[in-house]
Amino acid sequence: MSASASSGAPSLIVNGLPGAMGVEIAQACLRRGLRLAPFALTGPGQPESISVDDGNGGEAVEVRLFPPEGRDELAACMLDTYGGEGAGSFVCIDFTHPSAVNGNAEWYSQHGLPFVMGTTGGDRDLLHKCVDDAGLYCVIAPNMAKQIVALQAALERMATDFPGAFSGYALSVAESHQSTKADTSGTAKAISAHLATLTAESDFTEERIERVRDPDEQLAGGGTSHRGVSPVPDDAIDGHAYHTYSMLSADGKVEFQVRHNVQGRSTYAEGTVDAAVFLSKRMASGTDSRRRFNMIDVLKAGEM
Amino acid sequence: MSASASSGAPSLIVNGLPGAMGVEIAQACLRRGLRLAPFALTGPGQPESISVDDGNGGEAVEVRLFPPEGRDELAACMLDTYGGEGAGSFVCIDFTHPSAVNGNAEWYSQHGLPFVMGTTGGDRDLLHKCVDDAGLYCVIAPNMAKQIVALQAALERMATDFPGAFSGYALSVAESHQSTKADTSGTAKAISAHLATLTAESDFTEERIERVRDPDEQLAGGGTSHRGVSPVPDDAIDGHAYHTYSMLSADGKVEFQVRHNVQGRSTYAEGTVDAAVFLSKRMASGTDSRRRFNMIDVLKAGEM
Repeated sequence: MSASASSGAPSLIVNGLPGAMGVEIAQACLRRGLRLAPFALTGPGQPESISVDDGNGGEAVEVRLFPPEGRDELAACMLDTYGGEGAGSFVCIDFTHPSAVNGNAEWYSQHGLPFVMGTTGGDRDLLHKCVDDAGLYCVIAPNMAKQIVALQAALERMATDFPGAFSGYALSVAESHQSTKADTSGTAKAISAHLATLTAESDFTEERIERVRDPDEQLAGGGTSHRGVSPVPDDAIDGHAYHTYSMLSADGKVEFQVRHNVQGRSTYAEGTVDAAVFLSKRMASGTDSRRRFNMIDVLKAGEM
Repeated sequence: MSASASSGAPSLIVNGLPGAMGVEIAQACLRRGLRLAPFALTGPGQPESISVDDGNGGEAVEVRLFPPEGRDELAACMLDTYGGEGAGSFVCIDFTHPSAVNGNAEWYSQHGLPFVMGTTGGDRDLLHKCVDDAGLYCVIAPNMAKQIVALQAALERMATDFPGAFSGYALSVAESHQSTKADTSGTAKAISAHLATLTAESDFTEERIERVRDPDEQLAGGGTSHRGVSPVPDDAIDGHAYHTYSMLSADGKVEFQVRHNVQGRSTYAEGTVDAAVFLSKRMASGTDSRRRFNMIDVLKAGEM
C-alpha cells in the first residue's frame, strides 16, 4: 500500500485537462490539500502538458497529458505509482466529452481504475452495465453541484409527501444563463416538475419557464420584480446559472420562493472532489455490496 | 344522521368570534361553500351576535355568541342541531385565548365536540392528555398555514438527510413583521435551525436573525439587496410575515435562498378550514386508532 493510501486522502487524476472543468477541478483538488497526479488523459489535438496551481497563487503542478492512443501507457503509470484499485489511493475524474464516455468507461473497467464521471451524454445504460460487470468503484452523476442535488432531492421528497399542498397557487419559473446556452435549464425543468406537483398544476409545461439570455437584461437587474434571476455580476455574464421559482396564492397574498444562483464553475468542481474523497473512503472500507454511486450517496454519507 | 353529515361537508362552529381570526375563518368557511353554524362560543364582554359574510359580498350569516357561562347551553344546541360526535357532521374551531385553552378542551371532551385548535398557549401537555383520555377527534396545531408547515417539514427532512451538505456556506436570515410583534418569528427560528444543520453552523443563534419592524423601512424596500423581506405593500404593514433565508458560499459565487411572504391572515384561515374538513372525513371513516392530529397529518392526507 502506498503512502497516499494510508493517509486516507486519494490522489486525483483529472482526465479532461486542459478543459475548463478539468482546470477548475485540479484547482479545487490543490486547494483542499489533496495530491494532483502529474499525468492525465486528454483528447486528440491537445498540448503535451499543462501547469496548474490552486488558483490562489500556490505552487504549480506540471501535468503530463496522454492522448487517447497513449492511455494504456497512462494506466500502467497510474497503477505503478498508486498501487492498484481497492486501497482508495487514487481516483480518476472524468470531465471529457460525450463521445468519450463509453470508451473511457471500458478503459477504466479493463484496468480497474476507480472514477468519478461528470461527463454527460453517451449511452448511459451501457455505461452502467460496463462498470457493474467489472465491479468497479465509481460515482456517476450528471450534476456535481452537491447543494443543487440536495435541493432537488428535498423538493422531490416534499412533492411526494405533500402533493397538492400548494393547490390554488400559481407556479412561475425564470432562469438566466450565459447567452450561448440554447436550451432550457435541465435543473429548472426537474425542480419545476416537483413544484407543479405541489401546486397541482398538471398542465405546467417547460414552455412556461422564462429563459433570460440577453446580457443587457442580465446586467440591468429586475429591481423590485419577482424574477430574481438578475442582476448578474459583470464577470459572470459568460458563465452563470440563476434560477427563481415562485408559488403565488390565488389572492396574491402569499408567496413562496426558492432561488439558486451560481456564478462560474467552482461549485461543480468542489462537488466533484467531494465525490472522489467519498469514493476513496468507500474503497478503503471495502464493505460495499454496491460499488456504483451517485451524488445522493455522496450527500448522505455527509462527506465534505 | 343529519343532512349535513351525509353530504360529507361539516358545519363549522367558529369559537372565538368576533375576533379577527374567527372572522377570517368564518369567511373562508362560507367561500368554500361550507355551512357556518349560527352559534358560537365567545369570551367575556363580547356582543351577543355578529353578522358574517364571505368577504366577497355573499349572503350574511347571523351568529349568536354564547358567553363562557352559557357554554353548556351551546353544547346542547350543537348536539341537538347536528346529531352528536362520530358522524363528522360538525367541527368546532377554536381561535380563542391562551387562558381558555385548557378549559375549552375540557368542555369539548365532556360533550364530545370534535375540534380544531389554533389557539396557542395554555398547558399543552394537559391539553393533549385531556382529549386523549376522552378519545376525542381533534386537530391541534400552533401554525395553521399549511404551506408553511409543509416547507418547514421539508427543510427539516433535508437537514436530517443531508447534514452539512452546505458546509462552508454562511446562513443569513431576515424577517419582517408588523411593528407590534415584539419577539422573533418562531417560524424563522425553527427553519433557521434546520438550515444551520445544512451549513454545519453549530454556533448559529437566534440573535443572528435580522428583525425588521420599522414601517418606513418595510415600505421602502431593499432594492437589489439580498434581504428580500421588503418592500411590503402599504395595506399589509399592520399584518404581514415576510421571511428570507440565504445560504452563501464562502467565495460568494453560489447563493441559495428561500422566501415565504404572507400578507394578512387568509392563509391561516384556509388551513384551518382544511383541517376541519380533514377531521370530518376521518370521523366519517371511523377507522382511526389515533384521533389527535396535527397539520402534517392534514397535509399528508392531501385534503384541499
